[in-house]
Amino acid sequence: MTRTVEWDYNHGQLRLIDQRILPGDYRVMIYNDYRDVADAIREMVVRGAPAIGVTAAFGLALAARHSKARTRAALLVELRAAADQLQKARPTANNLSWALKWMLAAAEAQAVDVAPNLLRIAILEEAQKLADEDVRTNQEMAFFGASLIDDGDTIIHHCNTGSLAAVDWGTALGVIRMAHEQGKHIHVLVDETRPRLQGARLTAWELQQYGIPYDIIADGASGYFLSSGQVQKVFFGADRVAANGDVANKIGTYMLALAAHDNQIPVYPVVPISTIDIATPDGKAIPIEERTQQEVLALSYDGQPVFPNGASARNPAFDITPNRLVTAIVTEVGIIDPPFKRNLRKAVEGKLK
Amino acid sequence: MTRTVEWDYNHGQLRLIDQRILPGDYRVMIYNDYRDVADAIREMVVRGAPAIGVTAAFGLALAARHSKARTRAALLVELRAAADQLQKARPTANNLSWALKWMLAAAEAQAVDVAPNLLRIAILEEAQKLADEDVRTNQEMAFFGASLIDDGDTIIHHCNTGSLAAVDWGTALGVIRMAHEQGKHIHVLVDETRPRLQGARLTAWELQQYGIPYDIIADGASGYFLSSGQVQKVFFGADRVAANGDVANKIGTYMLALAAHDNQIPVYPVVPISTIDIATPDGKAIPIEERTQQEVLALSYDGQPVFPNGASARNPAFDITPNRLVTAIVTEVGIIDPPFKRNLRKAVEGKLK
Repeated sequence: MTRTVEWDYNHGQLRLIDQRILPGDYRVMIYNDYRDVADAIREMVVRGAPAIGVTAAFGLALAARHSKARTRAALLVELRAAADQLQKARPTANNLSWALKWMLAAAEAQAVDVAPNLLRIAILEEAQKLADEDVRTNQEMAFFGASLIDDGDTIIHHCNTGSLAAVDWGTALGVIRMAHEQGKHIHVLVDETRPRLQGARLTAWELQQYGIPYDIIADGASGYFLSSGQVQKVFFGADRVAANGDVANKIGTYMLALAAHDNQIPVYPVVPISTIDIATPDGKAIPIEERTQQEVLALSYDGQPVFPNGASARNPAFDITPNRLVTAIVTEVGIIDPPFKRNLRKAVEGKLK
Repeated sequence: MTRTVEWDYNHGQLRLIDQRILPGDYRVMIYNDYRDVADAIREMVVRGAPAIGVTAAFGLALAARHSKARTRAALLVELRAAADQLQKARPTANNLSWALKWMLAAAEAQAVDVAPNLLRIAILEEAQKLADEDVRTNQEMAFFGASLIDDGDTIIHHCNTGSLAAVDWGTALGVIRMAHEQGKHIHVLVDETRPRLQGARLTAWELQQYGIPYDIIADGASGYFLSSGQVQKVFFGADRVAANGDVANKIGTYMLALAAHDNQIPVYPVVPISTIDIATPDGKAIPIEERTQQEVLALSYDGQPVFPNGASARNPAFDITPNRLVTAIVTEVGIIDPPFKRNLRKAVEGKLK
């Protein structure tokens, strides 16, 4: 496996592992135009909060590279327009807007009389820094999170949060991988994660690469395993964590956390500090993206059509897990316990200082 | 639509609508041998608690019809062996064992000197009585349940509990159909119900036949709709209700009920009295059938394989919804409120007296 998101310095191009066709096929897509990068984010060639943040950053580097602007000011105008388009590709994701703001701020911080070509180089360097920082951050999260896992644990994991969701290593699945590399014997129950089946397709594939034993389960089955004493921990990632600890994540997370909580099984979101949005007071303030019904209706079963002709579907892509269901939040600066409102603010401010 | 389970008096055969191939194809299967009927139950040609009870009863009628026994005693021995085989086809289902016990008791109640041919006729008549009784029972349940539905309600429904789950009319979906026929404007969110997708395949198809508006949703999405104020009621059927009101039903029901309860949305199982098993004290005493992993792994998505080569899965078919999550239980003798232990016993004894 190469990095999920990678700049090709030989050709000045962005390379993304195409996650739509895994695990059946493995293909690396090549991008020269930031608008195609926005489409790649929208169409989920790349997905996972950290990965799309870094992808968008490299998208801005592409916009800078191909801009014909002759002044810093003109280039900044184009970069802001490009950032707007990239932002619209996934409105729920905090990392996306965080990365874009970070990149624009870095560009604006350059000297007023910087030559546009030097600005172009600075922007690419900044994107590369974000990518490298993401890998380091994930390894730190994995290290803290692995301390929560005991030898012999069975863990339920939702969606995909592994290398494929990040530049490398990942969030919740990075924690699981770290525990495995520490020699702990663990078993993972992989929520298939309808509608797009990222658990069945990507997490199962990654676990096979790492040699970690797993079983795929229907999303509705996790309640059975939790209530029958077969599970010790629940781990997942997040697209955004609000100031009060409410967690926006892939649809189905709320019901999983609820079932874990109902059976006194601990629930751990694993997120980089960049996913924590102190400006969002709680989950109610997070917009929930509703995606095309085609994502629900794209199934077949045993080679036969599943849905009646003319069937209609609804497809909210995320839900909100209220903070009362969250045991602790794993980050690269440590494990954050309740009360989340106070402790998340401290963690974010500590990281940024 | 004909009846889901029907005796063909012209040919002395059992006819079942093949539910494995709906909604893509419509086919009626014909049975002459009770062992094939047991396979049909196991392979889910027919499914749904009431339907498999009546199917098993007709299975015994087939066993009687083709038996070469020359005495009442010899025929009863064969019938008991056939009942054993039919029972093993779906161990969790209470209606199956209820119907088989009922049939055997009816056979044993015949005069000691009854001619075997008259006993054969009596057994078929008893199975037909169960089928007709099932339709009447379902209409009575539908009538009581519909009183809980208000004009304008959006309802989440799990699995398939309609005509296809019964001889005709069904349980929870019968309630919804009755409310619709009473002129109430309702909208149904149809849990697709992984792994076998009975909601997406069968419930959506039935709702289309009845002209009731619906949208299919991923099982993990019901929590989002419940927590965002878009749902007023939750209805489902059950495979068995214990004496204390714990409900065994299709996998995913527990998480749905939990999410409804977490948002103060009422939860209504709809079951005939025959599904209530007073001899089972609570949900812990109900065996949960784990079915082949192939049922989970049979998916493809957008025409592509979903699972990595060598993927493994676990497939519990049912879960237990604890009585604390149940608002009231709809039956053919009325709506049963908590405390369930006392009120279920009263309902069962009233029905049997």
